[in-house]
Amino acid sequence: MAQTLGEIAQFLQAELKGDADCIITGLATLSNAEPSQLSFLANMAYRDQLSTSQASAVIVHPNQAMDVKGNALILANPYLGYAKVSALFETLPAGSQTIHPSAVISESAKIGANVSIAANAVIEDHAVLANGAIIGAGSVIGVNSRVGEHSRIHQNVSIYHDVVIGNNTIVHSGSVVGSDGFGFAQDQGEWVKIHQVGGVLIGDDVEIGANCAIDRGALSDTHICSGVKLDNFIQIAHNVEIGEKTAIAAGSMVAGSTKIGRHCTLAGGVGVTGHLTLVDNVHVTAMSLVTKSVTEPGSYSSGTAMSKTVEWRKSAARFRQLDTFSKRLKSVEKSLQGSDKE
Amino acid sequence: MAQTLGEIAQFLQAELKGDADCIITGLATLSNAEPSQLSFLANMAYRDQLSTSQASAVIVHPNQAMDVKGNALILANPYLGYAKVSALFETLPAGSQTIHPSAVISESAKIGANVSIAANAVIEDHAVLANGAIIGAGSVIGVNSRVGEHSRIHQNVSIYHDVVIGNNTIVHSGSVVGSDGFGFAQDQGEWVKIHQVGGVLIGDDVEIGANCAIDRGALSDTHICSGVKLDNFIQIAHNVEIGEKTAIAAGSMVAGSTKIGRHCTLAGGVGVTGHLTLVDNVHVTAMSLVTKSVTEPGSYSSGTAMSKTVEWRKSAARFRQLDTFSKRLKSVEKSLQGSDKE
Amino acid sequence: MAQTLGEIAQFLQAELKGDADCIITGLATLSNAEPSQLSFLANMAYRDQLSTSQASAVIVHPNQAMDVKGNALILANPYLGYAKVSALFETLPAGSQTIHPSAVISESAKIGANVSIAANAVIEDHAVLANGAIIGAGSVIGVNSRVGEHSRIHQNVSIYHDVVIGNNTIVHSGSVVGSDGFGFAQDQGEWVKIHQVGGVLIGDDVEIGANCAIDRGALSDTHICSGVKLDNFIQIAHNVEIGEKTAIAAGSMVAGSTKIGRHCTLAGGVGVTGHLTLVDNVHVTAMSLVTKSVTEPGSYSSGTAMSKTVEWRKSAARFRQLDTFSKRLKSVEKSLQGSDKE
Repeated sequence: MAQTLGEIAQFLQAELKGDADCIITGLATLSNAEPSQLSFLANMAYRDQLSTSQASAVIVHPNQAMDVKGNALILANPYLGYAKVSALFETLPAGSQTIHPSAVISESAKIGANVSIAANAVIEDHAVLANGAIIGAGSVIGVNSRVGEHSRIHQNVSIYHDVVIGNNTIVHSGSVVGSDGFGFAQDQGEWVKIHQVGGVLIGDDVEIGANCAIDRGALSDTHICSGVKLDNFIQIAHNVEIGEKTAIAAGSMVAGSTKIGRHCTLAGGVGVTGHLTLVDNVHVTAMSLVTKSVTEPGSYSSGTAMSKTVEWRKSAARFRQLDTFSKRLKSVEKSLQGSDKE
Repeated sequence: MAQTLGEIAQFLQAELKGDADCIITGLATLSNAEPSQLSFLANMAYRDQLSTSQASAVIVHPNQAMDVKGNALILANPYLGYAKVSALFETLPAGSQTIHPSAVISESAKIGANVSIAANAVIEDHAVLANGAIIGAGSVIGVNSRVGEHSRIHQNVSIYHDVVIGNNTIVHSGSVVGSDGFGFAQDQGEWVKIHQVGGVLIGDDVEIGANCAIDRGALSDTHICSGVKLDNFIQIAHNVEIGEKTAIAAGSMVAGSTKIGRHCTLAGGVGVTGHLTLVDNVHVTAMSLVTKSVTEPGSYSSGTAMSKTVEWRKSAARFRQLDTFSKRLKSVEKSLQGSDKE
Repeated sequence: MAQTLGEIAQFLQAELKGDADCIITGLATLSNAEPSQLSFLANMAYRDQLSTSQASAVIVHPNQAMDVKGNALILANPYLGYAKVSALFETLPAGSQTIHPSAVISESAKIGANVSIAANAVIEDHAVLANGAIIGAGSVIGVNSRVGEHSRIHQNVSIYHDVVIGNNTIVHSGSVVGSDGFGFAQDQGEWVKIHQVGGVLIGDDVEIGANCAIDRGALSDTHICSGVKLDNFIQIAHNVEIGEKTAIAAGSMVAGSTKIGRHCTLAGGVGVTGHLTLVDNVHVTAMSLVTKSVTEPGSYSSGTAMSKTVEWRKSAARFRQLDTFSKRLKSVEKSLQGSDKE
């Protein structure tokens, strides 16, 4: 994976200051970099490390170009430069473009060109793997489901029936797509299952982290739009719609039939209750619970800030008295107004 | 899956108003329905859609029967009717009632009649699959474990040893049943593992969602009673008991040895700490933390409501001052009482 | 698994009071024990059960030795004694020390002595399984990854490439190690993937519960130090470091690049945001959110205590008014001070 600095400059369309023939063998942070590694300065908090870093070259903003003692790649957005160059040093093995003999593939499945299917994967009836799709070891692609071009399904993923996954989409290990939504009707204390006859529609350029669960729709499809990025442990309930390029951090859960707009971000551990609508560009901070629709872009939060447990206990006890406090405060104010009038 | 409306009326024991020969090919919401689809009105908020829906027929309460322009199925509980009729349009492939040649089945396992075992499933020593059980691709049924009659284990499920699953129970993909409870004793700063020698007992008519984890007991069994419904990402720790027909929404976690009663509901993301008892008919709202036993039926909550982050920060900062506020308020009240006396 | 009480006393180095030839066939709590079972008294709340327990013998502290009517094993730490003796009654099948013919093993993989590989497991190129390693059914060990001596990987575990797991470590079913960290750069509204080229380093004597996800590092490795114990559903983001012997309960999530010290405990459902440092011996209570580095050992909390929902709603509404309350209280105080001066 060695490249010359000149090749990398060309790949990034970056201005090169220094030795174009310098060999770069890897990427590292400024403080961890060894000679022959490329680093970057994206956060000004680490600016002082420019002078001590062992990196052979650093991607920097034009304003910091003068501060680099050695080689520099100068870019308006060094973090984006780092993201792009990371692709050159990817360690993930490419697909084999072969079908392992232990894989079990239905005769009715349609397998495109250059598809990779790893050991013990299972491709069920009428499933479609488009050109260049990669299926990891032990993964199951259910009846009638489709994996788009150049999409990669990692190991031990479970795709149920009637799931459509677009192109260039990634699903990490342990994730489940198309499991039943949680729907029951009450019949005199008995739960009667509502069979979930919808599917799941996942767009292009989506990434789904490890151990996620995306339920199939009750009637129509659950929908993850193109460009959505989901971290690990994301729960997407039946008939949810996640708008384009929205990103959701680990452990967040979206309840049934909720629609989240485009370019939103949910930080880790966020809950969104069912049947809500969040407009585009809504941002929710970690472990907040959204119980009402959000009609205005912006940042939203719930919860309390952390304290030492002994202090917190006092606040938590007082929290339960807040309504009484309010009344007592009002009474005090009235009493003072009364005394003012006297 | 086409049915006549007359057949569906008979199946539901519903009163039919209109054309018994009308062919129904699917189910949809009022707003999404196309001709030949059946819909339902369960939530009065959607009542106006009766007049614009393209559905060929609608399941309605007698009070709305007059508002349906076309065909109607009249039932006291339209939502229950929808639940029942959904079974007629299920898209999930039925079990094959065959054993795939790639499945690995111990010679000591007992396989009942009409059992389906999909590709690459593994049935370990002395496991029992009762009549009509369905095991999905890649799932593992551990040593001495039992899957009851007509129960369905979806793909890539992991059942450890000594797990007993009742009849007509469903376990969705990625779920794990019988993993070790989290038990350690301290020995001078070292964690000493407490081997978890209990099992797991799961009743009849239970549904377990995707990517759940139900730990085996430390000594006696963890117990999920009949009729319990678990959504995705449910954590059931060792020796928990979940009472009959209790339903738990996604991401909820119950810590060790806690007993939850019957007909309870935990909304999403609820935590229940260990060694508690919750009586029957307790309901906990989303993302609440239960740290004490609950002796009275009813609805319980914790947390705070969502605000814009800038507003929330002010409240969160004040939360930490609540104990001081309380003292200051008391002091103000005393001072006023003093001045009253003067 | 039957043992005489004398053998157990010797194993535990406990003082034996009573019949050394008594046959012990299992372990149980005081209240559940049947004759021939061994029990223990670790929690004084259960002291009264000593007189009614059917256990053939009880592990007790010297102070309670007199209260045991039958046989006793006397130890300074009865709970530790129970932990140690639990190993004698383990029900988990030992590894077969054979390689199942259905397992798929790369020719370039290195398989040590006495390794067990269960049905349909997949060992990819250049993977290393050290002596005595046990790989469960359906698990995948990725390219270049290593499982240390006597470590046990349960069923359907997914280990990506370049993951190093130490000795005597346990990974439960459904867990994923080495999935991509959640890293993207923004390019005019588009997310550009930051390829995650680091690995994961897991020490010795670690236990990882069911359905965990431990992401690979962005550049350098994610690091789980020796002796760490993780319950189920733990999210460890890229480049996190968890210090030695720290224990984390179910559903907790640690965001990217955070370093947690040694001997810490996170209770269930805790969130820790990214780029923080927690010193050694920090303890966080259930469902708290840590948003700042913690420089002092001790116990920390956030959230509110549970109430009946009707009461809680009032408090939650008042929470949003706290800043106004604060100002009103100050105004009242000023007003009173003014009247004092008059």
